[in-house]
Amino acid sequence: MSPVRFYFDFTSSFSYIAIQKIDDLVARYGRTADWRAVSLGHVFQAQGVAPPPMVPKKFAYLEIDFPRSCAFAGLLCKMPTPFPPEVKLARVVFWYLKARDEQRAHAFARDVSLAVFGYGKSVATPADIGAFLPEMSVTEIAAAGADAAAKAAVLAALPEAQADGMIGAPFMVVDGEPFWGADRLDQLAARLAQPR
Amino acid sequence: MSPVRFYFDFTSSFSYIAIQKIDDLVARYGRTADWRAVSLGHVFQAQGVAPPPMVPKKFAYLEIDFPRSCAFAGLLCKMPTPFPPEVKLARVVFWYLKARDEQRAHAFARDVSLAVFGYGKSVATPADIGAFLPEMSVTEIAAAGADAAAKAAVLAALPEAQADGMIGAPFMVVDGEPFWGADRLDQLAARLAQPR
Repeated sequence: MSPVRFYFDFTSSFSYIAIQKIDDLVARYGRTADWRAVSLGHVFQAQGVAPPPMVPKKFAYLEIDFPRSCAFAGLLCKMPTPFPPEVKLARVVFWYLKARDEQRAHAFARDVSLAVFGYGKSVATPADIGAFLPEMSVTEIAAAGADAAAKAAVLAALPEAQADGMIGAPFMVVDGEPFWGADRLDQLAARLAQPR
Repeated sequence: MSPVRFYFDFTSSFSYIAIQKIDDLVARYGRTADWRAVSLGHVFQAQGVAPPPMVPKKFAYLEIDFPRSCAFAGLLCKMPTPFPPEVKLARVVFWYLKARDEQRAHAFARDVSLAVFGYGKSVATPADIGAFLPEMSVTEIAAAGADAAAKAAVLAALPEAQADGMIGAPFMVVDGEPFWGADRLDQLAARLAQPR
């Protein structure tokens, strides 16, 4: 069985919920997930639509809906200030880690997103990121954030996401079938539970 | 306890799911719902955003996600052609009925939305609508569709919806707290289950 493809962005509030849940969820059905950090801003740009949080009434709703959705999912919640948070370094470091150890990259992403949306902390600097990577020095983290292959991987993820029909985050693909949103994890589980 | 305010549009695919579920759901918690048919196109226009189904990639996703969501909710599904469907008459007749009998208006709305999104049928003409209102002649339905008070009620619903923060449909308000989308019915139920 092929891995579930999992697109997310560290700036995306609802990606946080899926990031915390997806590996346990797919494991219950004998699957693994192939994680891909993307720049959601670029996905919206390619569609010619405004990022939903940038529409004032949508942001006002998000400020009610997102904490409620986190509580419903049993997760901590604190909206980061400023929003959207600065995540460029975390995104590149994710791909740097993924090239070396897929599972280490997942654990890193869980820690980063919990810091950002669970505790409202900054992950902008190598020192911030250092809290989640005790095995690396701040200098090594800064170097990972400038790694040419990792930066290329960030860019390469975008056309793949678009080819998969990504329209927002989180976005999951199960054997070609797309699921958009943390609120589709239940339907994704039902899909994985079906006999093939 | 005040009624749950329930905004919907007959053109909205996910309103169909909420229309079929909301009365039974709120009744389980000793509540009633106050239903309001609105023109979702005008809600989007006021926000300055494109209706999501008009964004090609979003429509492509809707064509997968909506039938799957209906099946998940135990509902029939057939996307109407053309989309969006013509529902102006049904909207005015809803308000005509609501002014006379709130529950009759709900049953009418359930039948209309089942015809449109369950069977993909047209509800454009008085004869189409007649199938759901055996107690009225086609001439009476046409007259109800031109009723001045009912037409005024359609227009009056829009600023109320906007004041409640409506950003899409279906949109529910419980004691001032907003819930957007058929995929928030579970959180709405959890809210109603809370002691007050």
